[in-house]
Amino acid sequence: MIVAIHGLGLMGASLGAALRKAKAARVIGVARRRAVVRRARQLGAVDEASTDWAAVEGADVVVLATPVRVILSTLGEAAAHLKPGATLTDLGSTKGAIVRAADRLLGPRGGFIGAHPMAGNERSGVEACDATLYRGRPFLLVGGRATRPVDRRRLRAIARAVGARPVALPSAAAHDRLVAAVSHVPYLAAYALMEATSPAHRALAGPAFRDATRVARSPAAMVLDILLTNGPEIGRAAARFARAFASLAAAARRGDERGLHRHLGP
Amino acid sequence: MIVAIHGLGLMGASLGAALRKAKAARVIGVARRRAVVRRARQLGAVDEASTDWAAVEGADVVVLATPVRVILSTLGEAAAHLKPGATLTDLGSTKGAIVRAADRLLGPRGGFIGAHPMAGNERSGVEACDATLYRGRPFLLVGGRATRPVDRRRLRAIARAVGARPVALPSAAAHDRLVAAVSHVPYLAAYALMEATSPAHRALAGPAFRDATRVARSPAAMVLDILLTNGPEIGRAAARFARAFASLAAAARRGDERGLHRHLGP
Repeated sequence: MIVAIHGLGLMGASLGAALRKAKAARVIGVARRRAVVRRARQLGAVDEASTDWAAVEGADVVVLATPVRVILSTLGEAAAHLKPGATLTDLGSTKGAIVRAADRLLGPRGGFIGAHPMAGNERSGVEACDATLYRGRPFLLVGGRATRPVDRRRLRAIARAVGARPVALPSAAAHDRLVAAVSHVPYLAAYALMEATSPAHRALAGPAFRDATRVARSPAAMVLDILLTNGPEIGRAAARFARAFASLAAAARRGDERGLHRHLGP
Repeated sequence: MIVAIHGLGLMGASLGAALRKAKAARVIGVARRRAVVRRARQLGAVDEASTDWAAVEGADVVVLATPVRVILSTLGEAAAHLKPGATLTDLGSTKGAIVRAADRLLGPRGGFIGAHPMAGNERSGVEACDATLYRGRPFLLVGGRATRPVDRRRLRAIARAVGARPVALPSAAAHDRLVAAVSHVPYLAAYALMEATSPAHRALAGPAFRDATRVARSPAAMVLDILLTNGPEIGRAAARFARAFASLAAAARRGDERGLHRHLGP
């Protein structure tokens, strides 16, 4: 199998490195900057790499591994270079807009499936490349009208090759609802914790604070794209969180032991 | 120096193990249960241990390392067994109620200083004993009317011996305001994140969720004591957090890129 990856940051370079380590694919990288292309080769993330989209033309699977809005703006270019019968996929953190756009673009001929490995850390760029990043993680697969059985098979094989656990979700909406709750609201909470504390206080914080705000050190461009493409689901999940938080805070403020017990469990 | 520690859980046993490893003190442990006393000896957390408060009578420093409300209910017993000139301290996560009670109890003769090492994890009990727990962490010192210079000196020496960084705070109120912001509100946010998600969604979550909710796996009794002894400060810090969160969530919901940029930074 030949896998082409557009975007050689944490997610893309790590996918390439893991596929190569597993000897599961020949990996072709595509990135905008020459320095990144060179470094991806040095780090063993790709077999070959280029700044030219034409490099993906021989690939069985083309993976878009950039921030969500870059994926949306490059889907057309990627589809134009797709080999007949090949699979186009992405690693974006929201799926509604991407699956809709891919359906419009590839609907008649098929060949798209969305993917979202639930892995990552606050690092970014090609230097963050880590062949073990996906190990043991859920690798969410989100089909649309353009998804063929062969697209699912290929992505399941890729997920397993990098040590991840493929999980098919019923729809892009189900995916976006899930990640709003378990990912995007935690992001908002992390940024809010930073905003609600002073640098002097943060300097004296313990490990609980560091863990709770780790994701607030993620690249702003990536987070912005996620938040801007999942507004309605984030709104609903944020409201659920805010209600639970307000109830906990009120119980703490008035010293309501029974109320806190209900929230904290036994 | 002889240091007696009442409560041989994560904090107390780790303090004992670290002091012994540094050869900084002879450590006497006191716990309610015989099995814990035995296990603390086996793990090297103490030189000797007992279920009897009388064991602390030879100590230069007596450390109360239990949940906050147990500290409050044992201060009298500890003071009754304190050697003349010795220092009484605690590792509780809130300080207002403890320092007030110690001032009342020891005011005339002196000998109390509050301590709060900003270290810990979601583990608990004597098995969680870890001689490296305090390494590199801020070790907050909170004096009151009963605090003498010798009490400060002794606690600074203990903090340094376990690899921590002693930091004197101006008052118990300043301490409780600090920890409400950097510790207690993150606890509430972690519990709220758990409440606002379903088990099915949590099973598919990534590392961001696990980190953001780690502290929600802490022992409920410990957390309850913290929250119930810092209500007013938690109320104020929670309101600041809730405002920041609401503003972020509203910007995400309406797709306000400029608004999000202001929150997320460049």
